[in-house]
Amino acid sequence: MSATKLTYLPVSGLGESIRYLLHYGGVEFEDERITREELAIRKPKLPLGQVPVLEFEGKTLFQSISICRFLARRFNLTGEDEWDSLQCDIAVDTISDIGIAITGYVTETNEEAKKAKKAAALTKINFLTEKLEGHLAKNDGHFVKGQLTWPDFVLAAVFTTLVGRGEADFFAERPLLKALKAKVDALPAIKAYLAKRPPVPF
Amino acid sequence: MSATKLTYLPVSGLGESIRYLLHYGGVEFEDERITREELAIRKPKLPLGQVPVLEFEGKTLFQSISICRFLARRFNLTGEDEWDSLQCDIAVDTISDIGIAITGYVTETNEEAKKAKKAAALTKINFLTEKLEGHLAKNDGHFVKGQLTWPDFVLAAVFTTLVGRGEADFFAERPLLKALKAKVDALPAIKAYLAKRPPVPF
Repeated sequence: MSATKLTYLPVSGLGESIRYLLHYGGVEFEDERITREELAIRKPKLPLGQVPVLEFEGKTLFQSISICRFLARRFNLTGEDEWDSLQCDIAVDTISDIGIAITGYVTETNEEAKKAKKAAALTKINFLTEKLEGHLAKNDGHFVKGQLTWPDFVLAAVFTTLVGRGEADFFAERPLLKALKAKVDALPAIKAYLAKRPPVPF
Repeated sequence: MSATKLTYLPVSGLGESIRYLLHYGGVEFEDERITREELAIRKPKLPLGQVPVLEFEGKTLFQSISICRFLARRFNLTGEDEWDSLQCDIAVDTISDIGIAITGYVTETNEEAKKAKKAAALTKINFLTEKLEGHLAKNDGHFVKGQLTWPDFVLAAVFTTLVGRGEADFFAERPLLKALKAKVDALPAIKAYLAKRPPVPF
């Protein structure tokens, strides 16, 4: 079997959920973290000019959420039937909306516009985390029927990004999201990973 | 079985690919198209305060791409194995990036900022459609091994939005994307739908 290699920036962002899933699945892999300068050099050779990219069983996988879903199927993290798979997908899309809201303001270069956008984004994130919290309340603290599924890992990664961006307060009023993040981080394989993870700013 | 009902705005946007898939799958459904004013009234009762929402077999489905993937599995439009499913997901995420690029500038209220954003978005869309065209060239004109899969429908819907936004030119230099859109639109169930579809501005 070919070597497995994940290439991404030295941040949480779109790559962390893939790292979590690979560790959870017990896959030996090279966790390559490249600088933005190195990314600029490699850009023309990347499938869409961007990372994360995962080399897996001789194939080149890209689009972060697609990679996560593929790994989730491999590791039986999509629940029991088509309805559970749907719940996973809806949860991940909703968590991704948090990521999109963050990107919307951190990439704005005009300072005044950035301030307004950040305020709007934080309102949106507050709304989304409230909805997610409500969903966990009805599903025994997980996204699907009290079971571990792949949105749990995607949440843990977005949580890392938000806390890194200085928005830890969001989770002060979201005890179930906070507990789920802690539960994922306490899984033996994840705990071992986090103990040796290089610092990720966000 | 409960009645099937899709609720969305009277545009293509995030709802059209769901409409296409429901028609392809031969599902009898109410195609409810509500005004923005009506949406504002219903907002508090919608799962995430937004549409599209699909009532299907007694359940309320939301998040447009999650709905499409669910229907795709039902109608055997995800290919033959996990790798085909992955290809479908990657293609859909890439097509969705076009939608995100469009949203990025059409929602900008500052005219000057909008102009700059539109230029950046069109560059991005040009890049993405070039990549998608290249992918079709290697897969016999479809996204997965010359077979009809669900990204074909998602493409047809985004195509409708781009043309409606006055960006038809994109496809002048993308003969394979154009041919695939025409192929989807010529499927008997889709042809019948398009013949009676109310006008969609974009």
